[in-house]
Amino acid sequence: METRHERDVNKLKEFTSQDAGSTHDGIANALEQLAPAIGEWITDFAYGDVYSREGLPNRDRALVTISTLVTQGTEPQLALHINTGLTAGLSGEEIVEAIMHLVPYTGFPRVLNALDVAKSVFEERGLTVTTTV
Amino acid sequence: METRHERDVNKLKEFTSQDAGSTHDGIANALEQLAPAIGEWITDFAYGDVYSREGLPNRDRALVTISTLVTQGTEPQLALHINTGLTAGLSGEEIVEAIMHLVPYTGFPRVLNALDVAKSVFEERGLTVTTTV
Amino acid sequence: METRHERDVNKLKEFTSQDAGSTHDGIANALEQLAPAIGEWITDFAYGDVYSREGLPNRDRALVTISTLVTQGTEPQLALHINTGLTAGLSGEEIVEAIMHLVPYTGFPRVLNALDVAKSVFEERGLTVTTTV
Amino acid sequence: METRHERDVNKLKEFTSQDAGSTHDGIANALEQLAPAIGEWITDFAYGDVYSREGLPNRDRALVTISTLVTQGTEPQLALHINTGLTAGLSGEEIVEAIMHLVPYTGFPRVLNALDVAKSVFEERGLTVTTTV
Amino acid sequence: METRHERDVNKLKEFTSQDAGSTHDGIANALEQLAPAIGEWITDFAYGDVYSREGLPNRDRALVTISTLVTQGTEPQLALHINTGLTAGLSGEEIVEAIMHLVPYTGFPRVLNALDVAKSVFEERGLTVTTTV
Amino acid sequence: METRHERDVNKLKEFTSQDAGSTHDGIANALEQLAPAIGEWITDFAYGDVYSREGLPNRDRALVTISTLVTQGTEPQLALHINTGLTAGLSGEEIVEAIMHLVPYTGFPRVLNALDVAKSVFEERGLTVTTTV
Repeated sequence: METRHERDVNKLKEFTSQDAGSTHDGIANALEQLAPAIGEWITDFAYGDVYSREGLPNRDRALVTISTLVTQGTEPQLALHINTGLTAGLSGEEIVEAIMHLVPYTGFPRVLNALDVAKSVFEERGLTVTTTV
Repeated sequence: METRHERDVNKLKEFTSQDAGSTHDGIANALEQLAPAIGEWITDFAYGDVYSREGLPNRDRALVTISTLVTQGTEPQLALHINTGLTAGLSGEEIVEAIMHLVPYTGFPRVLNALDVAKSVFEERGLTVTTTV
Repeated sequence: METRHERDVNKLKEFTSQDAGSTHDGIANALEQLAPAIGEWITDFAYGDVYSREGLPNRDRALVTISTLVTQGTEPQLALHINTGLTAGLSGEEIVEAIMHLVPYTGFPRVLNALDVAKSVFEERGLTVTTTV
Repeated sequence: METRHERDVNKLKEFTSQDAGSTHDGIANALEQLAPAIGEWITDFAYGDVYSREGLPNRDRALVTISTLVTQGTEPQLALHINTGLTAGLSGEEIVEAIMHLVPYTGFPRVLNALDVAKSVFEERGLTVTTTV
Repeated sequence: METRHERDVNKLKEFTSQDAGSTHDGIANALEQLAPAIGEWITDFAYGDVYSREGLPNRDRALVTISTLVTQGTEPQLALHINTGLTAGLSGEEIVEAIMHLVPYTGFPRVLNALDVAKSVFEERGLTVTTTV
Repeated sequence: METRHERDVNKLKEFTSQDAGSTHDGIANALEQLAPAIGEWITDFAYGDVYSREGLPNRDRALVTISTLVTQGTEPQLALHINTGLTAGLSGEEIVEAIMHLVPYTGFPRVLNALDVAKSVFEERGLTVTTTV
């Protein structure tokens, strides 16, 4: 039977199995001397306690995550979670539409910077993404 | 045939037809002397140009909108868009799960304030919403 | 001859002489036991060192101040500085246009909340302000 | 022997035992139907995993918490954590000095709003707090 | 006679005709596959519906724009709009004064980062800008 | 006897005497043509009027400063003030614990970016900093 920690790690894998670029493993490794608890909190609290909840599927959680990161302008994490969003079932077009949808709520600057980040992630993953006028 | 402005108004109605409380009409009316262009921009730009795009359904647009407003802490608009989200097809439980999902990204304070707003909106609409531990 | 502190107080008066409602005096009085240095910093640093600089007239300084406060969503201070802006030479219409101009940069929520604040300040001062569609 | 959850609850009590006003219990109770997991996350993640760490005493953790809440402008939580800070060993004067220290980093508006909150909390707890010019 | 779209494009040109460096054209081109609607929204909504309004001259609109971007810390857009501000009639000195004026409202960090951006833009345009102590 | 300006400069030195990397001197020099008043305001207002106050020791002021800068995500200034914090008496471990403490209040993204900044500063100063799981 799956332990709690195994559940948490498996949930994390649902979002990261196909990441070509920077991953949560990379974050945890970079901090393993300075702040090893952070890697545990991401796995056991964020992916375990929060992401593992029923009531909202992985794809929708990715949409919520991308929306808050565009709003905050935290670009390294946005790149990471456009990656996890693609792995969790969002199409590139849906991600671009979600970012564009934020113009009336955050204004253009945050959206333009987020689209630059999305463009780079799509190129790294070899995805061609286009939307209509 | 539907004119562009009729399309915009109809899109807006998809989000507001069941609102018991404060609505976009209320906003437009309050500003009709001071800044009447704002009401037009909300209808023709936000609901017309942005919300009317294909590629992301109304329900998902509501999820993105709620996520940015929780992150920004703009509570009057959050109350409005929990209402539009319910009308556009989100369940109360999904809205609560989406707000809770933001804890690892915005911290607890924004989430606690947003849950207070959600609680009030659900009470006004006579909805009983519960989630699991 | 004017001392430095007299210069600072005089500069402050250029912005507050006609305020009907809440003023910097009110702020300083409310904090005179808890944090009396704050009132001095507002007079001597903000109005003395910063506002007293040549190179940008009072009216333009008020426009910059209103723009940052709309963006931050700090509403009590926005009310105060719509008042100081009116005293410093901005018309109500210019203030409304400046707030509306922020939609593409901050999104609608901050702008709608700011227009509510402006509406209240204009009513307190007995001003009728209208803009075109 | 203390279980993990007992440890978490005890850590929370170190910050809340003397609170006259709004407390974490109040938050948890208000959300016990809508979002009962939030109360658990506050106890077990925030107070358990984070606050219980060695390496920074309770008083310093309260100082960090107050600083971030002033910066974010989330006033209900600021009131709560000025209360927990007083319980955890900060004096009212230290709290006021910490808030005033933020002027060069956040500007006056956030600081003025925070001092208003602090004033109310001190009055509720019957504390007389004064600082020098 | 000028069509609506020609009006929008002409308004945009009033702000961009002298830009040596990054321009709105660059933004639109970079997104022409990923999100071509964004370029249209910038021209037709931002420059057409918003900037084209009477009641506030171009120069003042540039001042408002720079103020919000300093406050948000969105540096690529700040560089762009220091450029558009110079084209729209602000002097380099006025831009520096406006940024400095924000210290009491945003604190030093945002202002210092903005002054670095301004310094780079002035150097790219070959402008010598100095202000007094 | 110490003049006011000498007091201000001496206070600044208490925070910067051991800085290997970027310092306030560097900031002032970079702006000495564009905005020389900024350097004076940092010395005379920030370090003179604010930091020189009794009632909170240098080490605690550094803790408050780091907390607000992590929250704002202003990374160049965070690097500077991790340096001033180390000089003012905080250990590297305390700084890491303070940043980690912010997870429940700002979420993971700001904290992860801040830990990256801290890691770079510690490496530049040749410090080995580790914390426990």
